[in-house]
Amino acid sequence: MERTVERAHIVAAAQLIEGRVRRTPIVDFGPGFFDSSGHVVCKLELLQHTGSFKARGALHRALTSDVPAAGLIAASGGNHGMAVAWVAAELGVASEIFVPEVSPVAKVDKIRRFGATVHVTGAFYDDARAACVARQSETGALDIHPYDHDGTVAGAGTIGAEIEADLDAVDTVLVALGGGGLSSGLAAWFADRPTRVVVVEPETSRCYAAAVEAGRPVEVDVAGVAADSLGARQVGDANWRALADAGAASVTVSDGAIRDAQRRFWAETQLIVEPGGAAAAAAVWSGAYRPADGETVAVVVCGANCDPASITG
Amino acid sequence: MERTVERAHIVAAAQLIEGRVRRTPIVDFGPGFFDSSGHVVCKLELLQHTGSFKARGALHRALTSDVPAAGLIAASGGNHGMAVAWVAAELGVASEIFVPEVSPVAKVDKIRRFGATVHVTGAFYDDARAACVARQSETGALDIHPYDHDGTVAGAGTIGAEIEADLDAVDTVLVALGGGGLSSGLAAWFADRPTRVVVVEPETSRCYAAAVEAGRPVEVDVAGVAADSLGARQVGDANWRALADAGAASVTVSDGAIRDAQRRFWAETQLIVEPGGAAAAAAVWSGAYRPADGETVAVVVCGANCDPASITG
Repeated sequence: MERTVERAHIVAAAQLIEGRVRRTPIVDFGPGFFDSSGHVVCKLELLQHTGSFKARGALHRALTSDVPAAGLIAASGGNHGMAVAWVAAELGVASEIFVPEVSPVAKVDKIRRFGATVHVTGAFYDDARAACVARQSETGALDIHPYDHDGTVAGAGTIGAEIEADLDAVDTVLVALGGGGLSSGLAAWFADRPTRVVVVEPETSRCYAAAVEAGRPVEVDVAGVAADSLGARQVGDANWRALADAGAASVTVSDGAIRDAQRRFWAETQLIVEPGGAAAAAAVWSGAYRPADGETVAVVVCGANCDPASITG
Repeated sequence: MERTVERAHIVAAAQLIEGRVRRTPIVDFGPGFFDSSGHVVCKLELLQHTGSFKARGALHRALTSDVPAAGLIAASGGNHGMAVAWVAAELGVASEIFVPEVSPVAKVDKIRRFGATVHVTGAFYDDARAACVARQSETGALDIHPYDHDGTVAGAGTIGAEIEADLDAVDTVLVALGGGGLSSGLAAWFADRPTRVVVVEPETSRCYAAAVEAGRPVEVDVAGVAADSLGARQVGDANWRALADAGAASVTVSDGAIRDAQRRFWAETQLIVEPGGAAAAAAVWSGAYRPADGETVAVVVCGANCDPASITG
């Protein structure tokens, strides 16, 4: 598999976005938190601008592109839309965002608050994506794809650079996969290192597992509690390249395990974590991924955006 | 003023509780977050066990005391009660907690979940305190005062040690004051350092400002949105010693500024912060404390425990 995102690209991306995105912390919630004999810590990327990792890739993509007068356009389950709207506001240009009906009101409202024009269209992400592509051909705005672009992958990969810098040694990074933007960035960063990237998908939206089985990206049905953030029907081509190059393993988690993880974060850390953001931790709590004795595991907690009442109510 | 908590006590406390409490992160939310020309960062102590800094002092106090068969007893606005109940569960002993009617249901429920017997009695903290003292004389349980004890002060002071270790240089620490447990611990840690501790109180619960005016602890009326966590009627004696020794300055914030700060944390960092936990940040946003150009300020975000709907609803 051809490697198109190298460490050097990610180092350059980190320099470009430094000071404009937040350096998010790694927190050890204590030996009892994950019920594991491994050393399992959390990268709290949900504290990022707009509440998810998406700010990194979107900003990097915009800063390495010519932004036309029409500004930015994107399709998104919600988090990427917020990120693009935020980037547009930072750069002082307009933005237009297409989201599917599955996107929570909390996300759609937040996109609007960043000043974007929002269109809610279609059932799932791919439907919104089609509407976005049609509109882009009319306006000529810069279309920032939520995952399938090497510039976005390099931006997300900066999380890997931070994990490596902040931990003495990390054996495994557990990360949720929707279309593959975040996980492929981590896979690209750790490609020649002993650190393994393990992808976590909902049982109901397993486009990466299906791609591994088929040997290439294929379409799957999507559903479930995390469908707004992890409900891409097919892993992106750029993302597949990096993940297959790294030979990233994958595990799946049930909707129940995701909900349990959300409640546990709230009860024990006071964090509101959205379903997709809790999926990687759910893999440990549910036993879908069992760290070995002494294995250092970084769990990427990648998104916050949901209605707190969906967890606490 | 006699100094009864030295740096050495805090260093010893840090060693004793290390690995049992969480090392909480300092996060820079970016230059625009505080609208300040200073360098203002947040110590996210709300990620601590039980959702507030109280876990440190309560654990340290218990670990340096003989715990009788009757276990632990405490009066609390809520956060300290949670912490004592958690310490009791960690040590495998019973606990009995007295809270006033002003304590939010979210806090009372959480104390019960840690296995404590809870008594809701009296309007404010001092009323619950009187009931606790009466009960203690019957049971002989170890009474862990929420703030007025050098062991508790030393435990809270470990936050100062972490701030100093994690920041190259810190000019000012902004910290909310209820009875003075946290702020006096910070004052003791930084007593002989150039770092200044600035206390933040609600306009409606200003027992430290009143003590500074009187030259000694005096009683004040308490009210307002943060009364459950900051509503002590009088600064503690042990706390007054450390704060007066350091000559800690103070500022006050309105209830409206506290509510605004809670909403801002939620909108821009996705954190649920309780009124008392947001008070120190409110001092910057409201202009009650104005950092100088280039001044490095650590804002202690010291508590999370509230109903998210009180912020997002």
